[in-house]
Amino acid sequence: MTDWQTYLSERQKLHQDDLVSFLGIPSISSLPEHKEDVALAAAWVADRLHKAGLEEIRIMSTGGHPVVYGQWMHAADKPTVMIYGHFDVQPVDPIDLWTDPPFEPVIRDGRIYGRGASDDKGNMLAPILALEALKQTTGELPVNVKVFFEGQEEIGSPDLPSFILEHRELLACDMIFSADGSQWAEDQPALVIGRRGLCALQIDVKGATGDLHSGTYGGAILNPIHALTRLVTSLHHPNGQVAVDGFYDTVRELSNEEKAHFEAVPYGDQEVVSELGIKGVFGEPGFSTCERLWARPTLELNGIWGGFQGEGSKTVIPSEAHAKISCRLVPNQDPEKILALVEAHLKKYAPPEVAVSTRKVAGLADPVSAPVDHPGNLAAAAVFKQLYNKKPFVVGMGGTIPVCGLFSRHLNADVINFSFGLKDENIHAPDEFFRVASFELAQKAWGLLLETLT
Amino acid sequence: MTDWQTYLSERQKLHQDDLVSFLGIPSISSLPEHKEDVALAAAWVADRLHKAGLEEIRIMSTGGHPVVYGQWMHAADKPTVMIYGHFDVQPVDPIDLWTDPPFEPVIRDGRIYGRGASDDKGNMLAPILALEALKQTTGELPVNVKVFFEGQEEIGSPDLPSFILEHRELLACDMIFSADGSQWAEDQPALVIGRRGLCALQIDVKGATGDLHSGTYGGAILNPIHALTRLVTSLHHPNGQVAVDGFYDTVRELSNEEKAHFEAVPYGDQEVVSELGIKGVFGEPGFSTCERLWARPTLELNGIWGGFQGEGSKTVIPSEAHAKISCRLVPNQDPEKILALVEAHLKKYAPPEVAVSTRKVAGLADPVSAPVDHPGNLAAAAVFKQLYNKKPFVVGMGGTIPVCGLFSRHLNADVINFSFGLKDENIHAPDEFFRVASFELAQKAWGLLLETLT
Repeated sequence: MTDWQTYLSERQKLHQDDLVSFLGIPSISSLPEHKEDVALAAAWVADRLHKAGLEEIRIMSTGGHPVVYGQWMHAADKPTVMIYGHFDVQPVDPIDLWTDPPFEPVIRDGRIYGRGASDDKGNMLAPILALEALKQTTGELPVNVKVFFEGQEEIGSPDLPSFILEHRELLACDMIFSADGSQWAEDQPALVIGRRGLCALQIDVKGATGDLHSGTYGGAILNPIHALTRLVTSLHHPNGQVAVDGFYDTVRELSNEEKAHFEAVPYGDQEVVSELGIKGVFGEPGFSTCERLWARPTLELNGIWGGFQGEGSKTVIPSEAHAKISCRLVPNQDPEKILALVEAHLKKYAPPEVAVSTRKVAGLADPVSAPVDHPGNLAAAAVFKQLYNKKPFVVGMGGTIPVCGLFSRHLNADVINFSFGLKDENIHAPDEFFRVASFELAQKAWGLLLETLT
Repeated sequence: MTDWQTYLSERQKLHQDDLVSFLGIPSISSLPEHKEDVALAAAWVADRLHKAGLEEIRIMSTGGHPVVYGQWMHAADKPTVMIYGHFDVQPVDPIDLWTDPPFEPVIRDGRIYGRGASDDKGNMLAPILALEALKQTTGELPVNVKVFFEGQEEIGSPDLPSFILEHRELLACDMIFSADGSQWAEDQPALVIGRRGLCALQIDVKGATGDLHSGTYGGAILNPIHALTRLVTSLHHPNGQVAVDGFYDTVRELSNEEKAHFEAVPYGDQEVVSELGIKGVFGEPGFSTCERLWARPTLELNGIWGGFQGEGSKTVIPSEAHAKISCRLVPNQDPEKILALVEAHLKKYAPPEVAVSTRKVAGLADPVSAPVDHPGNLAAAAVFKQLYNKKPFVVGMGGTIPVCGLFSRHLNADVINFSFGLKDENIHAPDEFFRVASFELAQKAWGLLLETLT
């Protein structure tokens, strides 16, 4: 009988065919006209789990797009590991910029092109194939496994807070590995010790009942754009620090060891400047670029609008002006409390001549952390050592996967990054791809990980 | 032979028919598909001037929409008066809110409804009809008259600066009366002693080469929206004063007499608050609402935009952010110099981490003034006394008619407001109308004015 690694090696062509088939389903979660396609992708995943030898496979209703669950729970006295990923994808605009149609995947020059190839269908299929290889060659799995694949990650998982709370017994586990995320570089792995959380709100400023002629009324009333720009400017000190009272109060400071880890990563001001084509970095004084990105909270204006935006000039005083704000949060900030602090600041500084209101515009997400010596990270580091023959960098991730905070809060289990997408793979953009080599590497990595966790 | 006033009275039904015919031409100057309609309106005006007995009638090319010129220059030793108006109109959006189609005028309840009825076709047709009445009944006019009707007022008269400069000998006159503008109230006339000028620019802030994920980069770079909002906020002091160095340096202060005139006008904070449905007035300290509107310069943000404006949340750091600014100017501010001061301020305070550029987005317009004892205002006051049996208020106008500044600069002649539209006539909005009574009053007023000017 072949061992599981040989089994995987021999089946790469079949596995690529599997991924091509999976990528052909246009499971865009944000577009109502693709609702059935998301359901189809769920069915595809359930079927593939069945072939892989998982048990108790269920397509579970959430109120919105479904969750696919499966398990194999026969490893007595071994830990229970949950594997997370998502089968929904981003929209494909601008469609004209794709070399090939986004849902007609092609393999070219060692890359599998198609929407979702890297984020997250390629990455989430890999552990299923690894489970199959172990199950088919050994008749069992080295640890207890639960899989949790969702269809609403790209829209912020709006139905998962209640879903995970409701199913917390079914989902109970010792730790979670996320197949959604990314890897540091083709030849360099990294452990992720934290992800930032999120809260977001909109500010609406209203002045007169209608747009006004700036000649007729200009100078005698408060322009809602002036009110808004002064108000949002008050949210930061000129040096970049957030000026909201209490904003930093509960922030957990990095340990000296963590600081040293970040310092050892060859990424900083110069890399950011050249990556983005900007004239210089800017951020909270007293912190390095990596610390600002991975361990410090932010308050960003994601959008602002009001009045005339066309060509030329229209001399209007608009009746309204608006802004979108989001905060990235770090341990131990509470999204709900931070939202309340920001709202209190805006209320305090709102000028009396206009009406200022605020409202939450996205789900709250807890920040999460997984220390470098967490058993999951230790196992991942051991696997990386075998595969890359390198010690992993220790980094944070500035972005948010809302479900991580939910797992942490409701299942009391940490989420370990175990993902093999790379920065250049055009996720959320035209010509998304996943490297054929990464796809195979990922399958092997998941097999090794499960063996290591015993 | 009847006198000219009887002539006018007897012909009101015919004159209304004339106006209905004029209003039927969709001469929207801002829409390229209506270019021929603007030309058609010019032809209609030329023809009507011909019927009225004017001479040397010409439809003159400007590079853009035409000017219609005519004259009657046989009043030896009498002053030469120019009459100004415009035959182009605003667009009609939102078309659904019109009770009747905007270019199928109807007369109902003493009102003539149709796009352009008040602004400015009804008001500019009135002097033509008055000239006809005088000419037909007396065989001559009491003074020398030139008429200047343009087809590009609603787009800021872009071709008139060079046109008026080029034709300054043809257009030479002692003073100009504008049939574009408005009257204080149905039962209360006013003299206008000044109109504000204008300059306008756009600010463009650029950061990274593309939009960024606010998780991946948030905290380590300067968000272009943050840069823009802080920069535009720096343009004002918190108390509403413009903070641009030198902005107020050349402003002519009101005389005590002018202040007293404005104070006598029953218009102020309460009226503005209730007109606009706002919570309170706001403006430069030390000045009344009327002073702020009519005698003080402003700097207004007419538009701002950047990043995400849709429903919900999109956690982006946009690559760009933009704002539109315009300044209303008063004597003796020079639009070009003020523009340069604002640009210098923006350059001085632009943060080094982003690229900030500015550009002019509209023609410059000089502020204009016409003292209360100007012969034109004295004549208008005499006419108003006859028609309303009231002393006129003495006011300013916050808005700008660019051509007034050009007349003042190139012809060295002041522009006197002589217009009969009222505030509630929905100009630039659905269901624009002109009062039938105002239309007749205006015709009589123009006749009286020309007699008074001898």
